[in-house]
Amino acid sequence: MNKNTIIRQLYAIEAVKLGNFTLKSGLTSPIYIDLRPIISYPALLQAISDLIWEKVKHIKADLLCGVPYTALPIATCLSLKHDKPMVMARKEAKNYGTKKLVEGHFKPDQNCLIIEDIVTTGASIIETIVKLKDVGLKTPYAGALVDRQQGGTENLAKEGCKLITVFTLSELLEELKECGFSMAG
Amino acid sequence: MNKNTIIRQLYAIEAVKLGNFTLKSGLTSPIYIDLRPIISYPALLQAISDLIWEKVKHIKADLLCGVPYTALPIATCLSLKHDKPMVMARKEAKNYGTKKLVEGHFKPDQNCLIIEDIVTTGASIIETIVKLKDVGLKTPYAGALVDRQQGGTENLAKEGCKLITVFTLSELLEELKECGFSMAG
Repeated sequence: MNKNTIIRQLYAIEAVKLGNFTLKSGLTSPIYIDLRPIISYPALLQAISDLIWEKVKHIKADLLCGVPYTALPIATCLSLKHDKPMVMARKEAKNYGTKKLVEGHFKPDQNCLIIEDIVTTGASIIETIVKLKDVGLKTPYAGALVDRQQGGTENLAKEGCKLITVFTLSELLEELKECGFSMAG
Repeated sequence: MNKNTIIRQLYAIEAVKLGNFTLKSGLTSPIYIDLRPIISYPALLQAISDLIWEKVKHIKADLLCGVPYTALPIATCLSLKHDKPMVMARKEAKNYGTKKLVEGHFKPDQNCLIIEDIVTTGASIIETIVKLKDVGLKTPYAGALVDRQQGGTENLAKEGCKLITVFTLSELLEELKECGFSMAG
């Protein structure tokens, strides 16, 4: 599945919409993106994971960690296909049992590549970085599908994490235009 | 990877231990099982998913739904390999945005096969069933790796859900013995 087909499919399943949308921050945006529905389209999930992989495959990562929830299936997909061990940073500690915030097996100082779907300010990734660093892991890189260009790159850089994405929001808008989609359509 | 190899690997990574363990319920058990580490062993994750699939592949399911968290990568693995759409029943509603308890695309009355790792009383599966039924989905079957035989089958039957597992706890203990593992070793 090439980039163009992926974008058409994301549009078809309404994971991407054009119009006037008000974001959580109160800002308005000409584009709405919510990748949660991709779990219902396994071939698309695989194709999106492949696009991200193309951008990050040169990175020497010992482990992968998806940011909950939407990026978890993407990280799983990459882990299975490329035989990369995964760890999981839970959104909340379980209120019983081992109370680990990072699940899975790892060794201190291993490099963990963070996988995210869409980056806005980078806050969710930073939450994950804090948990991973807390158990001694290194997080020099994060890979994602879309950078909404709202400070994510800069905020992550402050944490020593380089953000690598497939599309910036502007590039995604360009690609949508090339596919013949517009705000009127 | 055959059953025997899978059990040896689970033992090697300490996802399965023999000894005297006190469970949440206060009961003691000769076996400890916690599949959370399998995310760090992609080939093992795939093999366990395959074992579960063998038991449930005859079921006419429109959708798969993994019970958070440990079964999510197993469900993702099955979804990708067998091209089955997935939905996700979140553990908590997001406190902003669309507040959907069930993510993904589905139609009312579709059959959703629930995937779990280990079933004790079935409480986590029932929590998932409630959310799925609430959005109009049917949940006639749940597939899991291990049935700890603590009422799961009966409790799920009351909800109209048939539990299908690869091992009961007794069978797993037998298999461990056949592999040469004992409480002393």
